[in-house]
Amino acid sequence: MSGTKQILALNRFGGGDTAGFNARLQERLALRQATFGAASVLFYEQPIEMVRGNGVYLYDATGNQYLDMYNNVPSVGHCHPHVVSAIAAQAARLNVHTRYLSQPVEDYAVRLLSHFPAPLTNLAMTCTGSESNDLAMRIATAVTGARGFIVTRSAYHGNTAAVTAISPSSLSSASSTSAAPHVRIIPAPAAAPAVGGDVANLFAQSVSAAIADLQAAGIGFAGLVVDSIFSSDGIFADPAGFLAPTLALVHGAGGLFIADEVQPGFGRTGVMWGFERHGITPDIVTLGKPMGNGFPMGGVITRPEFLARFCQETGYFNTFGGNPVAAAAGDAVLDVIAEEGLIENAASTGALLKQGLEELQGEFACIGGVRGAGLFIGLDFNDSATGAPDQPMASRVINALKENFILIGAAGLYGHTLKIRPPLCFTPNHAGQFVETLRQVLRAA
Amino acid sequence: MSGTKQILALNRFGGGDTAGFNARLQERLALRQATFGAASVLFYEQPIEMVRGNGVYLYDATGNQYLDMYNNVPSVGHCHPHVVSAIAAQAARLNVHTRYLSQPVEDYAVRLLSHFPAPLTNLAMTCTGSESNDLAMRIATAVTGARGFIVTRSAYHGNTAAVTAISPSSLSSASSTSAAPHVRIIPAPAAAPAVGGDVANLFAQSVSAAIADLQAAGIGFAGLVVDSIFSSDGIFADPAGFLAPTLALVHGAGGLFIADEVQPGFGRTGVMWGFERHGITPDIVTLGKPMGNGFPMGGVITRPEFLARFCQETGYFNTFGGNPVAAAAGDAVLDVIAEEGLIENAASTGALLKQGLEELQGEFACIGGVRGAGLFIGLDFNDSATGAPDQPMASRVINALKENFILIGAAGLYGHTLKIRPPLCFTPNHAGQFVETLRQVLRAA
Repeated sequence: MSGTKQILALNRFGGGDTAGFNARLQERLALRQATFGAASVLFYEQPIEMVRGNGVYLYDATGNQYLDMYNNVPSVGHCHPHVVSAIAAQAARLNVHTRYLSQPVEDYAVRLLSHFPAPLTNLAMTCTGSESNDLAMRIATAVTGARGFIVTRSAYHGNTAAVTAISPSSLSSASSTSAAPHVRIIPAPAAAPAVGGDVANLFAQSVSAAIADLQAAGIGFAGLVVDSIFSSDGIFADPAGFLAPTLALVHGAGGLFIADEVQPGFGRTGVMWGFERHGITPDIVTLGKPMGNGFPMGGVITRPEFLARFCQETGYFNTFGGNPVAAAAGDAVLDVIAEEGLIENAASTGALLKQGLEELQGEFACIGGVRGAGLFIGLDFNDSATGAPDQPMASRVINALKENFILIGAAGLYGHTLKIRPPLCFTPNHAGQFVETLRQVLRAA
Repeated sequence: MSGTKQILALNRFGGGDTAGFNARLQERLALRQATFGAASVLFYEQPIEMVRGNGVYLYDATGNQYLDMYNNVPSVGHCHPHVVSAIAAQAARLNVHTRYLSQPVEDYAVRLLSHFPAPLTNLAMTCTGSESNDLAMRIATAVTGARGFIVTRSAYHGNTAAVTAISPSSLSSASSTSAAPHVRIIPAPAAAPAVGGDVANLFAQSVSAAIADLQAAGIGFAGLVVDSIFSSDGIFADPAGFLAPTLALVHGAGGLFIADEVQPGFGRTGVMWGFERHGITPDIVTLGKPMGNGFPMGGVITRPEFLARFCQETGYFNTFGGNPVAAAAGDAVLDVIAEEGLIENAASTGALLKQGLEELQGEFACIGGVRGAGLFIGLDFNDSATGAPDQPMASRVINALKENFILIGAAGLYGHTLKIRPPLCFTPNHAGQFVETLRQVLRAA
């Protein structure tokens, strides 16, 4: 197993003995397993039944309060009242598709697009990040006439058939090491400290070789799809700007640069979009998870001429995509990001958090690296003698943090990277609490 | 152009002169076009800006009230207060993914599955009908080891890359007559009156030939995907049971029968599911549009062993799919269907409506056929001399009905079929109003 599958194996209910669980949990778990069947995947050896969310906190059925450092969907905070009331008000007023005009939809489209650089002036609204990436691939194929895509080794871009083919982290190891014929898998970016300033050139060289390989195979090069914070690969943010030479290379080869902003978008990294940190303008930007703070919505942002080229073939209509309730949710999210200064908070609280984690790195030899931007930080566990990725350590820490009522996950090819990604309303106090709890957990480990 | 593209051409804003529109409409239209670009598709030569919905009615920005006979998403009525309050309450309480347990999700899964026959006991929750059909195709491929799918001539099954390939109505005519290598396109079912009782055998023969062709090509047969009311093909409901021989044939060839219930599901045809009318149990059932009355949600229902086989390869996780707010919306929809007797109403009011339309057929030679089940009826316009499909007549009627504040669309390969599909809370009075308005429109035509 690789990537996501491997990581989940660290940290999931394996279907084993439930005799130690309380009666309520046994009952609910049995219902979930009976209905979701083999597709039921639950975090932790003893799953948690959640009953309430508020800000950075989730509450379980037995009354425990958890600090949520994992779930990046409710990015402005669980059940944010401004978003909830916007959804409730619009759902009571009008919910219809985009073949009629409706003010919330046009206004949201204008507002969202105002956050993008000039050539990116068109928006297609979808319901999920998966639908966004699926559409982006189709646009890239229509524009370039080519079929080949390049992605990183542990990338995750969604769950449709087309997008699963460019999500090596979703595939079994047999599949992921022998990708679909139109997909080339390149290594994740190097960790900046390990290779000095050469991250940009090393990554560009990998992309260049993959483009040449696609062209030699007669498949052609449609696009490079990257999550600009490389979430599933283990979080690679530095040095800011390292994707710039790759953008030039992609354009030189006639392909499109598709920035998957489902993870880094909407302020997560201390700027509005992950690609901003790299000083680049992608050809297509895909949006999802935090866009509606949990209301199912996504989007594809691109140049008008690219969307027009695609629409010559098939056009695009999405029944639920761009409904006015989604627009109201998305608009409320933009309100909260602006009014509560969440981008600035991601930058400042993220910097504090990173500093605290770097101090821990000085204290504990098991911490092999701390990387990230804003409120998205990866912390590696490595064997202090050999430097080898230490997945069992990550697993122990994740479970110990759960015992301390902190929810967190792992990332990366080896699953040894703690994925630190709290809601953007995370405060310096929360950051201090997390660092101190992690310190206690590591001392006890 | 074919199918959907052709039909939309009847009935869409073509980007022409807007000088005759009021200032507000011009302004809103300009915003839509500037932001949605080439993907902006709006109904009617003069688009409508909607501001409010209630029950069977939509209201535009100038205060007009429209009877909605088109939009089958808000199936229990626009902005139904029970559904709205369920969404609002749950959004304020908890919105999280399915890697935690949450009571609304398990309870909804149990309740929804109780509406399916015994072997169909597993549910995978998605966000859209497109995601549902995309997943169904992947399950069928995993189970059968084959790649070939069979669909009807003007089928529409969604908008992802994989699902667009099995949606001939979405493709340009060049593409739809030369389908993707793994897709075989068969004619829609015959209209029952035209071929007597032979609908079942004619359809089965088409499927049989397509299976043989896929097998001869070495592609193999994964599944037949049918919308059991054949919405985009022009609505073919009779005789009930005509799909039964095809089911046997599909199983005999080792393929799966995938019932796309995005259109007929949730009571539309006077029974809970379209496949029920045919007395069959599909292998996979896909759900979408009316499931949450506009809240973006979908689902795939199948046998546990099929889902398990699929999960051996990749598993399935959908970030927004199966969130507790969706579950609350879906649960409220099931409440309303039961409490307001909407299935019975679809049957009884649908029968009244059909009877009224059949009376019109006796009065107007331009009506070539009336077909349907429950509150889903197709009415053909044909040249009274030659019998040829009369698309321009359908277009004139649709636009004249709009002038009379009734919203309705067309379907079928030739776009000559009026697609009559009001919310399920449609009353006998509404049916009478529609028939009488259509009578006046046809007299004036």
